[in-house]
Amino acid sequence: MKTMKAWVLGSPGELTLVDKPVPKPGQAEVLVRIDATAICATDLEVIDHGPPAVIGGEPPFNKNFTPGHEYMGTIVEVGPTVDEFVVGERVAVEIHAGCGRCERCRQGMYTSCLNYGLNYGEFSKGHRANGFTTDGGFAQYAVNHVNTLVRVPAHVSDEVATLIVTAGTAMYGLDVLGGLVAGESLVVTGAGPIGLSAVAVGKALGADPVILTDIVDRRLDVGLRVGADVVINASKEPVVEAVLKLTKGGGVHLVFECSGAPNAVNDAIHMLKRGGRVCLGAFSNEPSLVDIGHVVTNNIYLYGIRGEGQSAVRRAASLIAQRKLDPSPLHTHTFAFNELPTAIRYFQEKVDGAIKVVIKPQEFRD
Amino acid sequence: MKTMKAWVLGSPGELTLVDKPVPKPGQAEVLVRIDATAICATDLEVIDHGPPAVIGGEPPFNKNFTPGHEYMGTIVEVGPTVDEFVVGERVAVEIHAGCGRCERCRQGMYTSCLNYGLNYGEFSKGHRANGFTTDGGFAQYAVNHVNTLVRVPAHVSDEVATLIVTAGTAMYGLDVLGGLVAGESLVVTGAGPIGLSAVAVGKALGADPVILTDIVDRRLDVGLRVGADVVINASKEPVVEAVLKLTKGGGVHLVFECSGAPNAVNDAIHMLKRGGRVCLGAFSNEPSLVDIGHVVTNNIYLYGIRGEGQSAVRRAASLIAQRKLDPSPLHTHTFAFNELPTAIRYFQEKVDGAIKVVIKPQEFRD
Amino acid sequence: MKTMKAWVLGSPGELTLVDKPVPKPGQAEVLVRIDATAICATDLEVIDHGPPAVIGGEPPFNKNFTPGHEYMGTIVEVGPTVDEFVVGERVAVEIHAGCGRCERCRQGMYTSCLNYGLNYGEFSKGHRANGFTTDGGFAQYAVNHVNTLVRVPAHVSDEVATLIVTAGTAMYGLDVLGGLVAGESLVVTGAGPIGLSAVAVGKALGADPVILTDIVDRRLDVGLRVGADVVINASKEPVVEAVLKLTKGGGVHLVFECSGAPNAVNDAIHMLKRGGRVCLGAFSNEPSLVDIGHVVTNNIYLYGIRGEGQSAVRRAASLIAQRKLDPSPLHTHTFAFNELPTAIRYFQEKVDGAIKVVIKPQEFRD
Amino acid sequence: MKTMKAWVLGSPGELTLVDKPVPKPGQAEVLVRIDATAICATDLEVIDHGPPAVIGGEPPFNKNFTPGHEYMGTIVEVGPTVDEFVVGERVAVEIHAGCGRCERCRQGMYTSCLNYGLNYGEFSKGHRANGFTTDGGFAQYAVNHVNTLVRVPAHVSDEVATLIVTAGTAMYGLDVLGGLVAGESLVVTGAGPIGLSAVAVGKALGADPVILTDIVDRRLDVGLRVGADVVINASKEPVVEAVLKLTKGGGVHLVFECSGAPNAVNDAIHMLKRGGRVCLGAFSNEPSLVDIGHVVTNNIYLYGIRGEGQSAVRRAASLIAQRKLDPSPLHTHTFAFNELPTAIRYFQEKVDGAIKVVIKPQEFRD
Repeated sequence: MKTMKAWVLGSPGELTLVDKPVPKPGQAEVLVRIDATAICATDLEVIDHGPPAVIGGEPPFNKNFTPGHEYMGTIVEVGPTVDEFVVGERVAVEIHAGCGRCERCRQGMYTSCLNYGLNYGEFSKGHRANGFTTDGGFAQYAVNHVNTLVRVPAHVSDEVATLIVTAGTAMYGLDVLGGLVAGESLVVTGAGPIGLSAVAVGKALGADPVILTDIVDRRLDVGLRVGADVVINASKEPVVEAVLKLTKGGGVHLVFECSGAPNAVNDAIHMLKRGGRVCLGAFSNEPSLVDIGHVVTNNIYLYGIRGEGQSAVRRAASLIAQRKLDPSPLHTHTFAFNELPTAIRYFQEKVDGAIKVVIKPQEFRD
Repeated sequence: MKTMKAWVLGSPGELTLVDKPVPKPGQAEVLVRIDATAICATDLEVIDHGPPAVIGGEPPFNKNFTPGHEYMGTIVEVGPTVDEFVVGERVAVEIHAGCGRCERCRQGMYTSCLNYGLNYGEFSKGHRANGFTTDGGFAQYAVNHVNTLVRVPAHVSDEVATLIVTAGTAMYGLDVLGGLVAGESLVVTGAGPIGLSAVAVGKALGADPVILTDIVDRRLDVGLRVGADVVINASKEPVVEAVLKLTKGGGVHLVFECSGAPNAVNDAIHMLKRGGRVCLGAFSNEPSLVDIGHVVTNNIYLYGIRGEGQSAVRRAASLIAQRKLDPSPLHTHTFAFNELPTAIRYFQEKVDGAIKVVIKPQEFRD
Repeated sequence: MKTMKAWVLGSPGELTLVDKPVPKPGQAEVLVRIDATAICATDLEVIDHGPPAVIGGEPPFNKNFTPGHEYMGTIVEVGPTVDEFVVGERVAVEIHAGCGRCERCRQGMYTSCLNYGLNYGEFSKGHRANGFTTDGGFAQYAVNHVNTLVRVPAHVSDEVATLIVTAGTAMYGLDVLGGLVAGESLVVTGAGPIGLSAVAVGKALGADPVILTDIVDRRLDVGLRVGADVVINASKEPVVEAVLKLTKGGGVHLVFECSGAPNAVNDAIHMLKRGGRVCLGAFSNEPSLVDIGHVVTNNIYLYGIRGEGQSAVRRAASLIAQRKLDPSPLHTHTFAFNELPTAIRYFQEKVDGAIKVVIKPQEFRD
Repeated sequence: MKTMKAWVLGSPGELTLVDKPVPKPGQAEVLVRIDATAICATDLEVIDHGPPAVIGGEPPFNKNFTPGHEYMGTIVEVGPTVDEFVVGERVAVEIHAGCGRCERCRQGMYTSCLNYGLNYGEFSKGHRANGFTTDGGFAQYAVNHVNTLVRVPAHVSDEVATLIVTAGTAMYGLDVLGGLVAGESLVVTGAGPIGLSAVAVGKALGADPVILTDIVDRRLDVGLRVGADVVINASKEPVVEAVLKLTKGGGVHLVFECSGAPNAVNDAIHMLKRGGRVCLGAFSNEPSLVDIGHVVTNNIYLYGIRGEGQSAVRRAASLIAQRKLDPSPLHTHTFAFNELPTAIRYFQEKVDGAIKVVIKPQEFRD
């Protein structure tokens, strides 16, 4: 049996580099040699507290679990019956492979799989969320269900390809908001990777204007580079008033909340015109005060989204392939595989303007 | 010019019975002789504070304004070009006639009309919400746009016909929740008129089970009469736990929040299975704490609804005509027109188990 | 290894009763002891010509294939990881278990599975359509994926339980037509089992009126028993004119075409008001002439449906459990298992007013 | 009273240049000084046979009716209560202003207005479709409802601005097909103005690939200029086979039929993968043979579209303003106002490769 290098989770907050068996792809699965893995804020959550939505079993501490979910690589082996992909193809990943047998999966809502996380125990029903409930991308190899793979366009670097799943999440949020985005006004709150991706995807689909809010000018500048029409520094001016002023008092059609700030949802609903919609893609650890009366009397809809459903990653990948969407300004740093702790520090502390920090699992540095 | 008796709003909280000119129907309008008017909780809001969503002009205090929006009657005159209705037809009403020329009206979202309330001033664009922004049903006559009328089935009494609009609101909430309600599990929180109507409509459409929560046993009993499968007294047991226990830990598909309790929205989201949906049909005066993280990680959608869009009142009226829906248990008391203050007291203080209290504008008592 | 009695397909048109191994349930599957199986018009197609939509491999003649897809029974064994059902439960079936890995399955469109029929060969990707592409219900036992099972209410007989899948197809058609059926006018063309089920489900959901057309009075009478408001004998009066007259020239909202008559689609579009919708649930063997100009200038939508998607069978079963839907008038005859040829003759030739003819696979007659 | 020059319809096929009163804008209307009007194939239909969908009254022959519906201009007067636009703004038009009081208008389906065409008579309910049922754009001035106006971006010429409504029709077709077009494969059949616009809008929204079919190479070349990835000359190779070959046998997600060829619908359904969708935007004068069995067994949906609903023209205008969409290659010829007969001949006979031919109502030539 071949072995590989992999980072595994010890006690909360602890990551260790170990040797682990290379996994074997089953029915409808392939083995991916991982070429690049990006760090996401939820990775830090998983490392410190376990996955946010384990509903069965215990969190994966001290169980040899490998986190990391934003990765790409090259197919090196296909499991039985697989003809959807062939060895040698470059692929990026979606996170969620639903169980395929619960009510939600049967509806196509695989990111709401009712067997999410139930695969820690002995009677797995097949749900996978690599890096959350099954081994992820801080390793040299991973097994992926064919449903979770998209082809990487040749002109896209390994590093940028790790951002396809992030773009897919942004695409999914816009899908959920109704999809007919062209000509609609959109506020994105929070200029982290998902927020910046939402700006880029929203602009690619014709939202107009796209307004981005954050409290860090450097991030707002990246927002302008990926297509924001207007940026608002929320530490310098009140964002609700600023949005209303920009829209001559009318408010916008859509808000995509990506900041997780405690007041973000309440701000979002007050930026909208009647009948407006909010996509919730982030959250703080504490409950938030929300003016429900404003939601009701203004026919506002709010949509929580987990991950990247409706195969939105494929649509995002297509926009990237067509060069209508370019997430490359989000990638700021690359490290070797054994430098993961440093990479995490850069990401977490935003060292040197870090946004997306990538490690390369086939590379090691002395 | 003919005159009529009408209650008008003086200073906040003050209603006076006066003589007023009978209004004249214009293009696409009819004159309704009002035969019965029910009292709604939002009437009390309007009387005490003005309409909840005036966005232009001032509240209608001391302006001869007549509130009241849940009424029915008989058409006595039709305006120019009207052939949709004829004199003599019994009709119940919807509240909202959109302006027909804003973005939302053009989308069919007339309850989100962007010119809502702008008709107090001199340049009305045609929006009407009788009892909110234009004269309402605490009078002997009212003008209604043809869009806001539905025929009353012959077997339905005047008093019960005032509840058609309430049933329409419940229907609209279930529409917004996706419409495919048969076989879905539904919790209705709050056994007021809209909550009880939601139970009745949900059951008529095949929701199963329908669980109703409230803190008043007498109201829960009415809930059982209109079709609830299970009732939970929230003052006696914790509702979230009770719902989860009833669903063997799985949670329900849908919650229709009609209580306006401060914790109601947060409770609602915790009663749901992943991918579940909440309709918000009520609200408290203060912002509510909502666990946004739970909304996001469970792909929960929340829909604020104002009133009774998508012509849902017509669909509700059809169910009543077909005897598949019977809101009559909600009607508890009837008073003569000049007894409105007493009627309001019965409604407000729930005297003698009052739920829906009706006045009859053509009747007077010495 | 246990054996069972099963009818198998020889050359086209030929059915033989043989002994066959009892199949073994795999992951996510159960073994069903079949208690009743109804005969459907598509069974006759399969027996004579092979399944209508095989896209890979050859038709199943002379391959020991067992047709029959409308069955119910009792679970006698569960496969690995199955906890959704337990041994002893009475279940009815849906036909389609998608592969779970093609684009359509991932969207929740499992009846449009792109691997439909590809499981005849050696590299099955898991799609099953019992009675079409995998062994079906003219046998004593069958294997079913857990996705294809619904529980049978205790008050429903075995014979009537075979009609749940038919009711599910009708429900699915109404889902596809938009779902908000209450108060909408509906024409069902064709009073076969699906048409009659469409009448019953449409009425249960509040369609009004429900108009049924056919050329056989006896069937139209059954239509009245299951809830049709009006019936039209198309051999006695022109149906389009009759529908327009009933609707005072306006036309209806919805048509569910279940006749497969050559002119049925063209008639359907001319029965509609502008913006109306047609569900296509049947078809003739020849292309039909359709007035596309009428479709375009009247904003008409047409929806072909294969089978019973969106878990509509579960919703239909719920309505039956709640006694809001009763398909029992459709069941007319029962035969023992070895009398299948006679049962087919009764069904095909409509002997003695036969509509749904059922065989009981555990029963044999000397 | 001021007069203007206008072309009016005499007997079928006859257009005469006359003096006519300048119309007066009413409530919610403006007066547009027309600066450019394009000729559309349906104009020829109207001139020769009357509007295709008059449902009340008679066709407008010999009634001083002015056809022409693809125009743009400058607002010179606003009616009472209008503050949505001001004098001096450049605007392009949508065709349909629904009555605002029928069932379909209330649903937002104003292009399916049930009072379409009923405004020829004396009791107009307010529906307008300029150039079809109310005076149109082959004149120096026209009255437009504010709902039917979109602002023209400064960088867009008058001639190109007449194409905004065409782009809106294409946008509407893609909306109706589901809206989530990015990454979906799209065939457009027919390279007339709507087909070419569908290519351009589909590409702007990220459809991939976009395949265009026609029988004229010169038009296919324009298709390549507006974004088609592949073009197929249907006179040189069989289109269904060509599309299936391009998609490796799988078929495409979407077809937008814009040719009106007799076999176009049947071809369209055979180009699709299961669960695919067709938008019908054109039609021939005779009924077409359609393989309904293929539609049913493959879960295909077909959507007839009349015109440009859901305010799609505004979304198209926004894409043009953002320079994501450029319909200018469709404009080929411009004539003075009094040269309309010549302009029509160029359009009809495709003289000199004519696609969109424009007249300028303020210009006259000796």
